[in-house]
Amino acid sequence: MTSSTKIRHALSVTREEDFAAWYQAVIAEADMAEESGVRGCMVIKPWGYGIWERIQALMDARIKAAGVENCYFPLFIPLSYFAKEAEHVEGFAKEMAVVTHHRLKSEGGVLVPDPEARLEEPLVVRPTSETVIGAAMSRWIQSWRDLPLLTNQWANVVRWEMRTRMFLRTSEFLWQEGHTAHADRDDAMRETLRALEMYRAHAEDELAMPVIAGEKPENERFPGAVATYSIEAMMQDGKALQAGTSHYLGTGFAEAANIRYQDRDGAQQFCHTTSWGVSTRLIGGVIMTHGDDDGLRVPPAIAPQQIVILPMLREDDGDAALLAYCEELRAALAAQHALGEPVRVLLDKRPGKATQKRWAWVKKGVPLLLEIGGRDAAGGQVSVLRRHRLWREDGKPNFAALPRQQFLAAAAEELACIQRELHAEALQRRDANIVRGIDSREALAAYFAEDKRYPGWAEIAWSRPTGAALDAVVAELKALKLTIRNAPLGDQEVSGTCPFTGESAIERVYIARAY
Amino acid sequence: MTSSTKIRHALSVTREEDFAAWYQAVIAEADMAEESGVRGCMVIKPWGYGIWERIQALMDARIKAAGVENCYFPLFIPLSYFAKEAEHVEGFAKEMAVVTHHRLKSEGGVLVPDPEARLEEPLVVRPTSETVIGAAMSRWIQSWRDLPLLTNQWANVVRWEMRTRMFLRTSEFLWQEGHTAHADRDDAMRETLRALEMYRAHAEDELAMPVIAGEKPENERFPGAVATYSIEAMMQDGKALQAGTSHYLGTGFAEAANIRYQDRDGAQQFCHTTSWGVSTRLIGGVIMTHGDDDGLRVPPAIAPQQIVILPMLREDDGDAALLAYCEELRAALAAQHALGEPVRVLLDKRPGKATQKRWAWVKKGVPLLLEIGGRDAAGGQVSVLRRHRLWREDGKPNFAALPRQQFLAAAAEELACIQRELHAEALQRRDANIVRGIDSREALAAYFAEDKRYPGWAEIAWSRPTGAALDAVVAELKALKLTIRNAPLGDQEVSGTCPFTGESAIERVYIARAY
Repeated sequence: MTSSTKIRHALSVTREEDFAAWYQAVIAEADMAEESGVRGCMVIKPWGYGIWERIQALMDARIKAAGVENCYFPLFIPLSYFAKEAEHVEGFAKEMAVVTHHRLKSEGGVLVPDPEARLEEPLVVRPTSETVIGAAMSRWIQSWRDLPLLTNQWANVVRWEMRTRMFLRTSEFLWQEGHTAHADRDDAMRETLRALEMYRAHAEDELAMPVIAGEKPENERFPGAVATYSIEAMMQDGKALQAGTSHYLGTGFAEAANIRYQDRDGAQQFCHTTSWGVSTRLIGGVIMTHGDDDGLRVPPAIAPQQIVILPMLREDDGDAALLAYCEELRAALAAQHALGEPVRVLLDKRPGKATQKRWAWVKKGVPLLLEIGGRDAAGGQVSVLRRHRLWREDGKPNFAALPRQQFLAAAAEELACIQRELHAEALQRRDANIVRGIDSREALAAYFAEDKRYPGWAEIAWSRPTGAALDAVVAELKALKLTIRNAPLGDQEVSGTCPFTGESAIERVYIARAY
Repeated sequence: MTSSTKIRHALSVTREEDFAAWYQAVIAEADMAEESGVRGCMVIKPWGYGIWERIQALMDARIKAAGVENCYFPLFIPLSYFAKEAEHVEGFAKEMAVVTHHRLKSEGGVLVPDPEARLEEPLVVRPTSETVIGAAMSRWIQSWRDLPLLTNQWANVVRWEMRTRMFLRTSEFLWQEGHTAHADRDDAMRETLRALEMYRAHAEDELAMPVIAGEKPENERFPGAVATYSIEAMMQDGKALQAGTSHYLGTGFAEAANIRYQDRDGAQQFCHTTSWGVSTRLIGGVIMTHGDDDGLRVPPAIAPQQIVILPMLREDDGDAALLAYCEELRAALAAQHALGEPVRVLLDKRPGKATQKRWAWVKKGVPLLLEIGGRDAAGGQVSVLRRHRLWREDGKPNFAALPRQQFLAAAAEELACIQRELHAEALQRRDANIVRGIDSREALAAYFAEDKRYPGWAEIAWSRPTGAALDAVVAELKALKLTIRNAPLGDQEVSGTCPFTGESAIERVYIARAY
């Protein structure tokens, strides 16, 4: 779509004009979430939560298929649990919600925490559950027969954030956190990479969001981790979004929580542990990968409704026949399978002007919208709007009129096709926005200093500096508002010289501005 | 099962000996949950959480079928929100977790809440979400066209409890809370009773737990509610368990949160609101309804695994053929449907002694256990143990050897039959433990004062006293450790005199000891 066509887009702000404002507008106009009035916390509304339910269902199936069992651990973590893992608490200590009282009382008509109900030991609202799950693992694991121990929980967590943005960074968010314990490094690393691959496949196949799976540089590791891996996605403004992480924790957490097992020779060994998580942040990634100037476009695999049928009701005698036709259509679609599941189809009979309802669904991004008028019903037709190909060249909505049977026969494949096309579109855009061949710090600085609104990512061959040498690189990049995203796994041979250290390059890394 | 048969039960404590200890033993031996080390909070382990996932799936389907949409609201509620609804806060003020700081700092090597990060307004960890959802409703509702507004959330909530018992009363628990707003009393009351009926049907049909659906007396109302309804189940010790509640809130919460709508005549009206919830407490109800001295018995509809296949592995050459036979059996069962869903079947190939594994599954209460040895495989047989009919008259496990085809042909109906039989057994026990015809306070006191371990419930015809008259009744019952459970809905005509007031009886109520 070029900007020269005369299209009146559904949103009042375009990506081009103001990407951040556009992001907020999509969320508001698609009715996905809103500020709650509670600092840093959002209300997730039905369409946003429906997408999360889809993500949960698909991810949970992958988690269960891997033999990981769901549990539930306490929301509160005693302060002393954090004291055990010094490096870990250092990473979180600055941003935790602390419960200090267990009762309120009325003082002169005003509610206050009751001083007599002060907790002896304050409780922290979990920012992540390594410590409390570690304590459980130390109870549960005795011998090598108990390993691997594979657990997961779906939960809310809280990290106090000063600057929040809906879905991307909120004080409270929803996520799953996998926690596993293994006999040795190899088995733990296998699990770490299995979870990463699970996230990659979910992002690509279900969110239609291309990602790079790779290892984070040491400065970006999870507090206390030995190695941290991520999937990184490019948003439409060229920034990177870390969309999921998987950590190999070595024996550090096991030593802190005393997670030990008796090996086959009778000796006591510390377990090697992992943790991995994805969150409601994925929804932010979906918005910034697939949204356009008319709102959200939801990939069919995660759409709460894949097809919406809008009868053009006229509040006259013809409505009954029209509704009967639409209901029959709905039932025929609901009986089909697409992308391996029953088709999710809604007949929207609510009162209201049909064009208003159309645009509400367009902004929500439902993949296929069927508008059915009396003439369609009489002629056995359906009028189909594919959300991801919304406009004709002449700037009119791209409706196609099809015989009912023809549409029904092709509907499942149409949904699969939309899923593929959204992915292909995002992949093409990402690959077009990765610059390669930058071989000096000056060239890197010049590239990102250019008056280029969305510079995308730079792929750099580097020598993988560590310690102080890495710190210097990180500081230099920070001045350019850049971060090192990750070094892709399974990389090909790399040649050339590292622009940062002058040493021989050993791997590629992606450098980008990031959320 | 009479106590004269020589059976060595799987648990070390029987219901008869010590019901409370038996309850804890079932949870421990079925590996459902454990104390977390965090005061009042439990860890829900895979078998316990798997039952909760089944309850969630079945209840969520009912909620969605009623047109209620899932949302997610903040964990934290500003203190000022509670101040708005005086009666409500009075009911909860004594038991809430209060967040007062948003950062920790290290002081001489010890972590403490950072005094500089004290919140201006403390935040309460939600004990229930009427206040914060009310604030959202007041934003979302403008006109009669927005009504009814039907929302639900699945969430964790916290009520600080001094004495806790796993699943029944924990400081943190998991639940769903439905919140709806309506144009008038009739519509709100219809929704209140719809939710109650949904709970009744879920309890009876899916938990196989008979319940009485009725209205709570005014002293037992939810803080701020106009009417509170409950489902009440009888546990095997004769005590009542309130297993779900539904509240008609009138316009009180709407007035506090300013939930108003413009009616068809253009006038501003307050909404009538409802709320309703069930929690992980249901799992406690399942344990105390169906558990026996060998552990849990899980109704097939909510069993994480309905059938477990245990191959009698001998670690020799025959194992391969045995496993192939078992795998074929598993696949044939997994391809079937029972109780409207695909059969959930597990082939347990883990190492370990077969009898140990058998008893582990017995204690978990898996409905059907198949033990398959080499001879079964060779002869095309299966050896079936029905968990709810565990023992033969001679005190041996009640295995039945069946031809494979015969078992496969009957498996789905067998699961449905177990579901029915568990319900019938519980219903018969409940009805046998309700005493009727008590017509004086003296008779009531005498009945419950008798040296009868499990006196069950008394059904009393009463005049529905209110205010001070009710308070007197409540106090009198309290001295007997009794409470009024509810007055059944849709009751027949009642005659006679109320034993408490001497007035004409107008309805029945159940009086019982309770959890």
